[in-house]
Amino acid sequence: MEQQLQEKWNGFRELVSKIGSYNEAIGLMYWDLRTGAPRKGAETRAETIGLLSTEAFKLQTSDEMGTYLDFFAQEDHAAQLEDVDRRLVATVKQEYDQSRKIPESEFKAYTILTSKSETKWEDAKESGDFDSFEPFLTEIVATLRKFVGYWGAKDTPYDTLLDMYEPDMTVERLDAVFERLKQRLVPLAEAIAASDIRPELPFLEQVYPKEGQKAFSHFILKEMGYDFDAGRLDETVHPFATGLNPGDVRITTAYHERDVLSAAFSSLHEGGHALYEQNIDPKLTGTPLAQGTSMGIHESQSRFWENMVGRSLPFWQRYFGDLQRQFPEQLAGVTAEQFHFAANRVESSLIRIEADELTYNLHIIIRYEIEKMLFNEDLDVKKLPEVWNAKYESYLGITPPDNAAGVLQDVHWSGGAFGYFASYSLGNMYAAQIMHTLRKEMDNFDELIEQGNLLPIKQWLTDKIYRFGKSKKPSEIIFDVTGEELNPDYLADYLEHKYTSLYNLKL
Amino acid sequence: MEQQLQEKWNGFRELVSKIGSYNEAIGLMYWDLRTGAPRKGAETRAETIGLLSTEAFKLQTSDEMGTYLDFFAQEDHAAQLEDVDRRLVATVKQEYDQSRKIPESEFKAYTILTSKSETKWEDAKESGDFDSFEPFLTEIVATLRKFVGYWGAKDTPYDTLLDMYEPDMTVERLDAVFERLKQRLVPLAEAIAASDIRPELPFLEQVYPKEGQKAFSHFILKEMGYDFDAGRLDETVHPFATGLNPGDVRITTAYHERDVLSAAFSSLHEGGHALYEQNIDPKLTGTPLAQGTSMGIHESQSRFWENMVGRSLPFWQRYFGDLQRQFPEQLAGVTAEQFHFAANRVESSLIRIEADELTYNLHIIIRYEIEKMLFNEDLDVKKLPEVWNAKYESYLGITPPDNAAGVLQDVHWSGGAFGYFASYSLGNMYAAQIMHTLRKEMDNFDELIEQGNLLPIKQWLTDKIYRFGKSKKPSEIIFDVTGEELNPDYLADYLEHKYTSLYNLKL
Repeated sequence: MEQQLQEKWNGFRELVSKIGSYNEAIGLMYWDLRTGAPRKGAETRAETIGLLSTEAFKLQTSDEMGTYLDFFAQEDHAAQLEDVDRRLVATVKQEYDQSRKIPESEFKAYTILTSKSETKWEDAKESGDFDSFEPFLTEIVATLRKFVGYWGAKDTPYDTLLDMYEPDMTVERLDAVFERLKQRLVPLAEAIAASDIRPELPFLEQVYPKEGQKAFSHFILKEMGYDFDAGRLDETVHPFATGLNPGDVRITTAYHERDVLSAAFSSLHEGGHALYEQNIDPKLTGTPLAQGTSMGIHESQSRFWENMVGRSLPFWQRYFGDLQRQFPEQLAGVTAEQFHFAANRVESSLIRIEADELTYNLHIIIRYEIEKMLFNEDLDVKKLPEVWNAKYESYLGITPPDNAAGVLQDVHWSGGAFGYFASYSLGNMYAAQIMHTLRKEMDNFDELIEQGNLLPIKQWLTDKIYRFGKSKKPSEIIFDVTGEELNPDYLADYLEHKYTSLYNLKL
Repeated sequence: MEQQLQEKWNGFRELVSKIGSYNEAIGLMYWDLRTGAPRKGAETRAETIGLLSTEAFKLQTSDEMGTYLDFFAQEDHAAQLEDVDRRLVATVKQEYDQSRKIPESEFKAYTILTSKSETKWEDAKESGDFDSFEPFLTEIVATLRKFVGYWGAKDTPYDTLLDMYEPDMTVERLDAVFERLKQRLVPLAEAIAASDIRPELPFLEQVYPKEGQKAFSHFILKEMGYDFDAGRLDETVHPFATGLNPGDVRITTAYHERDVLSAAFSSLHEGGHALYEQNIDPKLTGTPLAQGTSMGIHESQSRFWENMVGRSLPFWQRYFGDLQRQFPEQLAGVTAEQFHFAANRVESSLIRIEADELTYNLHIIIRYEIEKMLFNEDLDVKKLPEVWNAKYESYLGITPPDNAAGVLQDVHWSGGAFGYFASYSLGNMYAAQIMHTLRKEMDNFDELIEQGNLLPIKQWLTDKIYRFGKSKKPSEIIFDVTGEELNPDYLADYLEHKYTSLYNLKL
């Protein structure tokens, strides 16, 4: 690198680190708010978060940043950078463009709108009254349509939104993928519904004191290689994972004494998110590359550990004894196989977050199709309940009794997060596809799990995925790991294989 | 207020709030580091704290700040401000001057010096080797002597340092106060040493499981009016209190299973600090006035609750039953009176932080006299061990066997905190003097405690002290509350009264 370039680069890196520091502080303040910050300090805290966010935003969109980005956009300068540094520039530039292209006054108005809208949504969900929420949602959709214009529509307006959560993912590709998934999963769900085999679940009715669940969550996280020296486990109402830096990736879980499955699987889920971030190459620390590369890939790791590992039979053949030791009375006489079936029972349900591994994807496809209609076909927001209910009847065979259990169930839209839902199913598909490769390369995959030897699996994922953070795009990760593009058949194969055996199906 | 003034004021207040926001974020990051932040994130965290501290420092010492301070220093402008606002300007100006008067390069060098010195001190304390630490301490003292020149010496150079922790406190005043205290406390300590009455302490040898201690700490904090909606109690190796804002004042305590006294009294102590900050007028939030007015007044509140309330007989007459319920076996057959005596036993000891309520002040006077010699009489740092040991022999009748238990025992000097120690004894004296007034105005003080009715006491302290935060100077607080200046006789009276009865003394 010539000297001028080196100096510019140092300046750019310093500015990026500074933004990273603000984000770490903001991340900690949010974590703190959710894990026991005193109620009466919340207002002052909100002001502090507001101030630091504004400072970070100012730096991110500053003319100084613009000058650096222009400099490194020049071909002869870009050519002198290493790959990972070019990716850093591109990532920062994307955020810069996204923010700078919206007129400040409109962005501010939108921030206020979504903040009000989330409160409105809470009330509407409580009462089931879609009409009171509709004007807000209509305005959010209208604003986002306008923003897409500012950002520049890709193939279709909705493509622009998808790309924000899953870079380079397109409507064309997702249409094909989801169509295929529907073709294979709807009949599978129907076959299960028609089967008369049902797991026996009396032990699920027992009370499982919190201390035992806590001990099991800690144990299982250690088993999967979660590093407690680079994280901590706390208790919250809604489980989450937050990475402040690769040396500090915290998770939370919720313990329900009447539900022995919930905390165990949410610990595995958040633990999967955390393994990803704990194992990002420390060289990327302090840059926006030190995070998961997309919502979809991130979700693939939480789902991989929760479902592909945690809901497998070998897993419970190995670990059911440990759970039983925590709850000898409650689980007396229960077998690993029975427990495994309980953790994999399928039932069409109205609520996405309560859905099983199979029907979950149908909930997502419904949301994807509706979002696409909103942005590419100008669907009127007023019609959402009607469209929603029709799709639930068609894909899941059930109709919500009211809007609270229907179109109002998720918070996402009230905050303007259109394009986000697809990530959940992408995560499932990526996870199954990655496991397919993993099984080819590690033919003792089931044995490893059955032996409780999970660390080689973590190591394989670190080598192939985790260490790169955001320095590879999601499509690159998938292609480099599996040798092909996203392919929904792996998920369908995996689910068919699992359920034909559990429900004794003939497809 | 005229319009120009109002605009200036708004700008000034916004700048002050911004600094406040940085400090709140920094405060939370320190709290987090001490209450369980993952080890592997510490390095990145240090960088984040460094960055935010630098940003806050830049604002605090900015030309923009200088311009505001000049503007409000003009008599006709100052005259239009309310008292509390004038105090805010003065407080900010003091910090500004303190920082701006030191050349940047020297301040930076000093920061590095004290940081290295603290590490050196840790090693030296471990090995007892004063000589390895001496060059660092010598340089710190030399630098501070120079800084005092920049800041401007008050009556004596050491006055300047004292003033930084206890505004307006002087060597002249403290000399008189400590002389009087020595006159009265040394004979008292001697009389106790000569007495053949000793408390019976076999129950102190028992094991007290952590859970019971935790429950008692929570209980006692609620009793004294600590607001858990504006704070939280965590566990750390060294107890502390930290106020992020009046709605978020957190405390920690340490549980030792072989010491039933430690956690209870440290909870009362930190709880006292916290009551002060939780009850500051919310109008002061976000300004540097929303904190204790000085180290001495702050310490007076921790000591008041720990000692004047917590080590009183009525307190244990009321609460010993609650403690006994947590530990029925360990405390079987023990009376409130025996427990009270155990909590008030006097013994000359080498280590300040293990000292009892009486001899503690002698430990402080020794440090005060030595610091004064260093800054006003050019005492050579090399002579510290000799001077230290002679004073311990003279005031406490014991000589440290080595420097680890002597001159190396405290961290303060390694960080340059000369002038700080006096605050601890000031706290004791203020507390006794305040209690004297409180007893006059509330003649049922002992009954309130014996009834477990502590909230009227908290309310009285709030009205007289807490709500003002730093908007009154310590000398104003003491004069307004008690009608006179600091008077050491109240502390001596209080201690004489307590110990003549416990040890059956004739003075």
